[in-house]
Amino acid sequence: MLKAEIHATVDVPLGDRTYPIYVGTNLLLSQTWTKHVKGKSAIVVTNETIAPLWLDQCVAALEEAGKDVATAILPDGEEFKTLETMNLIFDEALKKRLDRKTTMVALGGGVIGDVTGFAASCYQRGVEFVQVPTTTMALVDSSVGGKTAVNHALGKNMIGAFYQPQCVVADTTTLTTLPQRELVSGYAEAVKYGLIRDAPFFDWLEENVQALLDREPEAMAYLVERSCINKAEVVSQDEKEGGVRASLNLGHTFGHAIENGLGYGEWLHGEAVSAGMVMAADMSVRLGWIEPSILERTKALLEAFGTPTVPPKGRITVEQYKALMSVDKKADAGKIVLVLLKGELGNFVITSDFDPAVLDEVLADYA
Amino acid sequence: MLKAEIHATVDVPLGDRTYPIYVGTNLLLSQTWTKHVKGKSAIVVTNETIAPLWLDQCVAALEEAGKDVATAILPDGEEFKTLETMNLIFDEALKKRLDRKTTMVALGGGVIGDVTGFAASCYQRGVEFVQVPTTTMALVDSSVGGKTAVNHALGKNMIGAFYQPQCVVADTTTLTTLPQRELVSGYAEAVKYGLIRDAPFFDWLEENVQALLDREPEAMAYLVERSCINKAEVVSQDEKEGGVRASLNLGHTFGHAIENGLGYGEWLHGEAVSAGMVMAADMSVRLGWIEPSILERTKALLEAFGTPTVPPKGRITVEQYKALMSVDKKADAGKIVLVLLKGELGNFVITSDFDPAVLDEVLADYA
Repeated sequence: MLKAEIHATVDVPLGDRTYPIYVGTNLLLSQTWTKHVKGKSAIVVTNETIAPLWLDQCVAALEEAGKDVATAILPDGEEFKTLETMNLIFDEALKKRLDRKTTMVALGGGVIGDVTGFAASCYQRGVEFVQVPTTTMALVDSSVGGKTAVNHALGKNMIGAFYQPQCVVADTTTLTTLPQRELVSGYAEAVKYGLIRDAPFFDWLEENVQALLDREPEAMAYLVERSCINKAEVVSQDEKEGGVRASLNLGHTFGHAIENGLGYGEWLHGEAVSAGMVMAADMSVRLGWIEPSILERTKALLEAFGTPTVPPKGRITVEQYKALMSVDKKADAGKIVLVLLKGELGNFVITSDFDPAVLDEVLADYA
Repeated sequence: MLKAEIHATVDVPLGDRTYPIYVGTNLLLSQTWTKHVKGKSAIVVTNETIAPLWLDQCVAALEEAGKDVATAILPDGEEFKTLETMNLIFDEALKKRLDRKTTMVALGGGVIGDVTGFAASCYQRGVEFVQVPTTTMALVDSSVGGKTAVNHALGKNMIGAFYQPQCVVADTTTLTTLPQRELVSGYAEAVKYGLIRDAPFFDWLEENVQALLDREPEAMAYLVERSCINKAEVVSQDEKEGGVRASLNLGHTFGHAIENGLGYGEWLHGEAVSAGMVMAADMSVRLGWIEPSILERTKALLEAFGTPTVPPKGRITVEQYKALMSVDKKADAGKIVLVLLKGELGNFVITSDFDPAVLDEVLADYA
């Protein structure tokens, strides 16, 4: 049996408790995390892509811990991040008569984590859950912070809950089977932490592009750890997103408009955020808030990872962008509020107080 | 304009705050409650039956307070207490671009309150809501305590949240348009408080049957006030139903089995609970835990109100009862846990520690 190695444990203080993120290798099949499953039963929720790769290990670990294990295998893709798909989890859980003491285990990427977390928040009005992220995106971002949701035809993540897991199993071994496109889309999300609050991490990313593209375990573990620490610090200051947490949406208002405008599923979330961050940085330069060098470094780093730095040309009009951006939930009573950069590398502002002509200009250039 | 009269204000301390229940007459059209709608917009959620009766008043009060008001009119009936119906609220809210600062106003009975409360808990991960119950059942029970939910094909209230309103507008004037069958089904639920914790209220109910059947405003207001006080005391001791709150489920495990066995919608919830309470009381007598006189008084009071004291004969088998009762969420890891009566009038036990043969006997007698 492979030896589990914990590279780091990041504690996330949220709500009335603190939960651990275990960062390491070969954790999934180990007993590192199963103590957080407290009842007699668990239901592992995953998708058709991940099931053949990692489901057996996850079930085996739970069975070794003496649990009755049910499974729910959902179709794969952002287009299935819906109430209807969530209901498939309830179908399975109720068929197996899982009670309030069951634990839901989210084994997969951001979509699985979001849908399962939301399902856990409302199954029997709330059961415990554990996150086992299997994509870079989920390891560096979506599995930390307790935001869960499904999409609605009229907007992304419009229906959901703030709900914290019992623990997060950030096993970088699960990334070994990840397609390169998904791998690097998560790296783009990590760049965000550098831009908004952690300049030394941005520097480190620039220096470690090759190691990360080569999936060197040490580099990946450091990227995950540093990302989780950054995210945990932000969200623990602002669990319900009244203030500083919104900084994590750098590039996301643009990015959601790209995802929505293209139709969910065509671009990965991290790819849309990658282009969205460049748009936000570009707008910040045009407003005179940051040096052009920050924009250039951002573009260069994302290009090195191989993620997009512009949205597809001619697919989304300026008017569409604006309509999509004003329905985005970061919109406050109709105004477009954006996370932008201001000052030295590592500093942001959240504001609707900018010259709207500059936004029009940016959108026109990228549309 | 009719003069609003507040008969009583019951404070409900739940979570990190306390919210008021305003009990009185002509409250809906007044400004008694609109101060609890804090943002610029509100969406009133009601059903096709209530809309022609009370929607205009509710909208007028909100508009007088300067709010932009959207409405969502759902189909009427327990069979529409589903995720699909809840989605109609989101459709409307998103079409109107209602943001995180909107308030959802639940204008209707228990189904509207449950669906709207759950919708509010997860729309944009949580917006505020106000309850305006328009049925006796909702005034005495479901609008107090923050349990919200929708049904699943495999069980009632299986998907939901604990979520507290900003205030409850318990306007007994809205009961003037209620069909008698619904009126008295709510009275049955009030009997529960007498049985589990408030013997003087049980006595009062026995003495005021006629006044209540005649819808005398003073009697109705007292019944609502007393019920809300009882419920608020219980739920504030046990918000998430780990212990004493489960006592409010007296008659409900039997009752849910009746509702589910007949198919949701055939019997009103309060009618099923009425028969269920008799079954629970009868079982308590057979176990030797209460005097037969308590059972007799319970039956007599419910008969006087005109609610059922037995389930329909020959419609649900003993085996069906047991299957339905063990999937009920009060079931703890497969065991059937029941709320039963023990001791003097006004005392309950919650237990799975009873002779199962006695349960079989009761089910056989009532099946």
